[in-house]
Amino acid sequence: MSDFEAVNAALEAEAPALHRTLSPLGRRAVFPQGIPFQAAEARDKAFNGTIGQITDGHGGAVPLPSLAAGLAGLRPDGPLGAAARNRALLYSPVQGMSEVRELWRRRQRRDAPPGVPSSLPLVVDGLTHALSLCADLFAGEGRPVVVPEPFWGNYRGTFEGRTGARLLPAPMYRDGRFQPASLAAALAELPAAEPALAVVNFPSNPGGYSPTAAEREELVASLLAAADQRPLMVLCDDAYAGLVYDDAVPRASLYWQLAGRHPRLTAVKIDGVTKELAFFGGRVGFLTFPYAPDSAAAAALESKVKFLLRATVGSPVSVTQALVAQALGSPTLEDEFEAVRRLLAGRVATLADALAACDPALLRPLPFNSGCFALVELPAVEDGGAGLDPETLRRHLLAHHDVGLVSVRPRYLRIAHCSVDAADLPELVHRLRRGATELAAG
Amino acid sequence: MSDFEAVNAALEAEAPALHRTLSPLGRRAVFPQGIPFQAAEARDKAFNGTIGQITDGHGGAVPLPSLAAGLAGLRPDGPLGAAARNRALLYSPVQGMSEVRELWRRRQRRDAPPGVPSSLPLVVDGLTHALSLCADLFAGEGRPVVVPEPFWGNYRGTFEGRTGARLLPAPMYRDGRFQPASLAAALAELPAAEPALAVVNFPSNPGGYSPTAAEREELVASLLAAADQRPLMVLCDDAYAGLVYDDAVPRASLYWQLAGRHPRLTAVKIDGVTKELAFFGGRVGFLTFPYAPDSAAAAALESKVKFLLRATVGSPVSVTQALVAQALGSPTLEDEFEAVRRLLAGRVATLADALAACDPALLRPLPFNSGCFALVELPAVEDGGAGLDPETLRRHLLAHHDVGLVSVRPRYLRIAHCSVDAADLPELVHRLRRGATELAAG
Repeated sequence: MSDFEAVNAALEAEAPALHRTLSPLGRRAVFPQGIPFQAAEARDKAFNGTIGQITDGHGGAVPLPSLAAGLAGLRPDGPLGAAARNRALLYSPVQGMSEVRELWRRRQRRDAPPGVPSSLPLVVDGLTHALSLCADLFAGEGRPVVVPEPFWGNYRGTFEGRTGARLLPAPMYRDGRFQPASLAAALAELPAAEPALAVVNFPSNPGGYSPTAAEREELVASLLAAADQRPLMVLCDDAYAGLVYDDAVPRASLYWQLAGRHPRLTAVKIDGVTKELAFFGGRVGFLTFPYAPDSAAAAALESKVKFLLRATVGSPVSVTQALVAQALGSPTLEDEFEAVRRLLAGRVATLADALAACDPALLRPLPFNSGCFALVELPAVEDGGAGLDPETLRRHLLAHHDVGLVSVRPRYLRIAHCSVDAADLPELVHRLRRGATELAAG
Repeated sequence: MSDFEAVNAALEAEAPALHRTLSPLGRRAVFPQGIPFQAAEARDKAFNGTIGQITDGHGGAVPLPSLAAGLAGLRPDGPLGAAARNRALLYSPVQGMSEVRELWRRRQRRDAPPGVPSSLPLVVDGLTHALSLCADLFAGEGRPVVVPEPFWGNYRGTFEGRTGARLLPAPMYRDGRFQPASLAAALAELPAAEPALAVVNFPSNPGGYSPTAAEREELVASLLAAADQRPLMVLCDDAYAGLVYDDAVPRASLYWQLAGRHPRLTAVKIDGVTKELAFFGGRVGFLTFPYAPDSAAAAALESKVKFLLRATVGSPVSVTQALVAQALGSPTLEDEFEAVRRLLAGRVATLADALAACDPALLRPLPFNSGCFALVELPAVEDGGAGLDPETLRRHLLAHHDVGLVSVRPRYLRIAHCSVDAADLPELVHRLRRGATELAAG
C-alpha cells in the first residue's frame, strides 16, 4: 500500500465521518518522503548532510551576531534548556517543537473531562493559519460552511474566497438575544447526508459573547442532533479562550463538550497564543484533532497537515515557539494572564454602563460578557429602529468625531474595548451616540 | 467601479502579460474593506476601537511579563526605535512593517542596474510562503510550471499538490554540464500563446550551482526569446543569494537581468532572511514585483497578496521582523555575512577535493560553486555507469555507514555541506564511496 493509500485508509477506518468530509485537496495531501522526512531519519547519524541550514556541523547555529543579539532574552533554564537560543535560530520541525506541543496540550487539558480525546496539537502560524489549513483539508468548491452571523470577515476570505466553499451565515441574535440553536437550524436546511462544516467561536468575535451553561447545553444538543443527518465537522475557534468576565459563565472550550460525543460529529480545536498569551505578533497557533496522540487517525491527519504546512510556509516559526516555551515554563504565567483578564473585565463594566444610555431606536447594545469586543446593533426600521447604515455611521464617526470603530454587516458596529483605555470608553460612547443622533436627524 | 474591477483593470492596463497569467483565485483575490482596512483608516483617531489586540489604550502592548522577558534583546536604538519591543508583541501590518520593507528594498537594490523597477517588497512567512502565494495567484489547475531538474521537492507540493498546476521538469545537466537553455527548451514545447511559469533558482538547490557570466547571458537570452511566444512569469527563487564561492561567478540575482526587459516576461523576486541572514527559524521572506513602488500595478498586486496572506496566516510575524530590522540596522552585518560565506567556501573546497577521488562509474559530482549543497550523480547504465538507485544508496548509508544524505530523483544524492563540519567532509565522502562500491558489488 502506498503512503497515500495508507493515510486515507487509516482515516476511513478510524474516522469515517471526517474521511467523507475531506476536500479533493485534503484527500491527496500526504506528507512526502522528501527532505524533512529524510532528515528526520538521519537525525542521530554521525555524519548528517541532509538539512539545508547552516550549522557548525554539530547542530549549532552559525548566527550573524547582529541578529543573535536580539535573542539575548531567551534563557538556558527554560523548557528548551541550554539550546533555546540555538533552536530559535534554526528550523522548527514541520509539526512544531515537541516541547511546545506537549506543554500546550497539558494546558489545553486542564479543562478536559476525563476520557475526551485530543491529539498532540500541531503548531501553525497563528489561528488564521489553522482555519486556513482546515479550509484546505475540509472545505473546497461548494462545501457548505455554516458560520454564526455576524461573523469575523476573514472567515469569508479563508473559506469562500480561497477554496470556493459556500459560507452560510446563521443569525446569532434575535430581538437582541443569543440564539443557541441557530447553527443547527441552518444545517437542517441542507440536503440530507451532505457533509458540512460549522464554526463555533466563543468568546465570540465580533460579539464578545459566551453562552451561559443552559445556552451551551442547547447549543451542544442541537449540534449533536444535526450530526444525525450528516457528517458534520465543527471547528472550535477558541481564539479568545479564557477571556470571560462573568463568573457564572463557563470558560472551557466547547470542544470538550463535542469531541467524541457522536460518531458523525468531528470537533476540531483551534487555539493559540495570540490572545491566550497576549502575544499578537508571535503567530503561534495550534490545530488539535479529537483522536488520541498515538492513534492512526491522528498520525494520518498529521501527515496531511504537514504536507500543507510545508507547501505553504515551510515550517512554523522557531523564535516565537522558543518564546512561548519559555513563557509556558514560568510558574507565574497564569497569574499574569489573570491580571490581563481583570484589566479587560474593568473595561467591560465601564463600557456596559456607558452603553446603557443609548437610545434604542438608534443603537442597541447586544449582550457581551467575554472576549475583546462589544457589538452594537443599529436596529432596522421594520424593527422599530432608525435603520442607520453601519458603514455610513462608521465614516461619519471617523470624519467628525475622531472615533474609529468597525462596521460589520448587516447592521452592527464593533467596539474593540481591548484597545481602548477604560477612562476613554465613556467619551467614545458619548461620541458614538452623538454621531448616531446626527445621522438620524439627516 | 468596484474594488475588484479596479484592481484587475489596473493590472490589465499596466501589466497585461501578468494579468493573462492570473489563476481564477488570483483574479478574484482583492483585499477587502474589512478590519485591517478599517483599522488603517482609524490609525490616527483620538478614540480608536478598531483592532482586536489588547493594548493599554494608547498603542502600548499589555504583555505577560514571562513572555516579554524573552524580548529583552530588542534594543531601543535600532531602526524601530524605542517601540521595537512593543511592536514585536503586537500585530504587524498585513503587508509587513514599513521599516523592514524599506531596509530590505535598499539592500536588494545594491545589485540593481539603474532603471530596473522593483516594488516595495511584501513581507511573508519565509520563502516557501512567497512561492505558495505566487502559486495561488498564478498557477492553478493545469497551468504549466517549468522547473529546473533536479529540483527542490517542495516545488511539487507548492505548485502541483496544492494548486493542480503541471510541473514540467527541464533537465539542467547533460554529461555533467550545466545547460543554460533547457528551461526555454521545455517552454518551447508548450502550445503557442499559453501562459506559463518558470522557476529560476541560483545558487541552486539541490545543485549548489550558479551560472558563469557567459551561461547567464545564454539563459537570459533564451528566456527573453521564450517570452516572444507567450506570457511568461519567471519566479526568481533567490533563497541562497550571495552564497557564491567563485569570485569569477556573478552574485547578483537574475531578477535584475530579467525585470523590465520584455513586455511579456514578468520577473518576480523571492528572497528572505533564511539564508541571507542565516536566520532559519525566523520565517521572514519577501515577495517583490517588477513595478515601481508607487505604480498602480504594484498597488493592485499588493491588494491581491494581502488578501491571500490575510486569509492564510493573518499577518506576518512581528517578532522576527523586529529582529531583522535590528540586524539590518547594524553596520557590521555584511562583514558578519561575509564570515559565514568564507566558512562555507572553505567547506566547498574541502568537499570538492574529497569528491575528486570518486569512481565515475559509481558517483559523478556535478559542478558546484555556491549555495549550501553539492550534488552527486549516480550515472545510469546507458551512460557508462553502474546505475545505482539513489534511494537504495541513501538507505544503505543510513543503515551501515552512519551517514545521512538526501536522495533526489531521478539519480542524485544531495550533500548539505552547510550542516557538516569541514573536518568531517573527507570521512563522509569516504563512506559514501565505500557504500556505493558495496552496493555495486551487490
